[in-house]
Amino acid sequence: MAALRIQALERLMEELQKLPGIGARSAERVTFHLLRSSTDEARALADAIIRLKQTIRHCRTCYNLTDQERCAVCVDPRRDHRQIWVVEQPKDVLALEATGLVEGSYHVLMGHIAPLEGVGPGDLTIEALRDRVRREGICEVILATNPTIEGDGTALHVQSILEPLGVKTTRLARGLAVGSQLEYATTAMLEAAIRERK
Amino acid sequence: MAALRIQALERLMEELQKLPGIGARSAERVTFHLLRSSTDEARALADAIIRLKQTIRHCRTCYNLTDQERCAVCVDPRRDHRQIWVVEQPKDVLALEATGLVEGSYHVLMGHIAPLEGVGPGDLTIEALRDRVRREGICEVILATNPTIEGDGTALHVQSILEPLGVKTTRLARGLAVGSQLEYATTAMLEAAIRERK
Repeated sequence: MAALRIQALERLMEELQKLPGIGARSAERVTFHLLRSSTDEARALADAIIRLKQTIRHCRTCYNLTDQERCAVCVDPRRDHRQIWVVEQPKDVLALEATGLVEGSYHVLMGHIAPLEGVGPGDLTIEALRDRVRREGICEVILATNPTIEGDGTALHVQSILEPLGVKTTRLARGLAVGSQLEYATTAMLEAAIRERK
Repeated sequence: MAALRIQALERLMEELQKLPGIGARSAERVTFHLLRSSTDEARALADAIIRLKQTIRHCRTCYNLTDQERCAVCVDPRRDHRQIWVVEQPKDVLALEATGLVEGSYHVLMGHIAPLEGVGPGDLTIEALRDRVRREGICEVILATNPTIEGDGTALHVQSILEPLGVKTTRLARGLAVGSQLEYATTAMLEAAIRERK
């Protein structure tokens, strides 16, 4: 393909194909779309990518994403800060927030225990969660990890860590299909799981 | 969604959703993928977008894409420069090159005649094509516009412009489904259409 020996074109297509859900065909479509767009439009996208990496960090309290010291949920006085919803990833916070049923705050574990991938309890934010429960007078911890083997294992481990502190722990009901990912659950499925948590 | 009131996150998702084939869900997936990626990886993507806009231009001769004055096909001495393949868009050059059957050079019209969208013959590169045919001793012009109403209309118009110059004009055979887009044709379909051009 002599006509395609254009470095800038090939490089963008390669970079785009590293993104999830973008194959060769989509990469080509996006590249030609950007070629037709104005320089300002293309630059807006590039700037948004740079700014994302420059400004986003993890909340000092709950490890949710934020562009401040503490996230929007942690600093919101209308939230019930004696209730902590424990999730694996920041994405799961979005899924739960979309239901509008969560009045408490969150705690993002930043993953799940997976010995085969070399992820142990020490790699997660479990220690920070225990400190919060100990210091902040928490009434309830809802373990909202994924309904998978790793998610269940992680929830069990967290539960065993929190047990000595005497805090009430609950888990989301299985309205979710076992083996699926929380981030892909529909809002309706999540609502059922939240209402029937045990 | 208080947890999502993070400007940098929302802005990137908005920008991504302007791209073809990327909806809210894909934009979210890509954004979180970039959050997990290293700063270098994210910057490589942003740089590739910027570089694309900075370096890509149209070939002075045929209007194909290039990062030089003239495109790789136009400067290739092994190509038959007495044969011109006329296509609507730079993307169509890629599709034809993929067949490996084109020995000639190209001419990109930069669109098709579409009166309802306000695109007349003067908005295309037909004048430049006529100059090439007149000056470069062209033996054959293959009209490889899309097999659509607009593509056919454009081909007819180009043919009428070239007729007084006495050059042989052919059209791709209809191995292509009428109403489809050339850029999405399979290589096999394109090969059949090229071999049986009339």
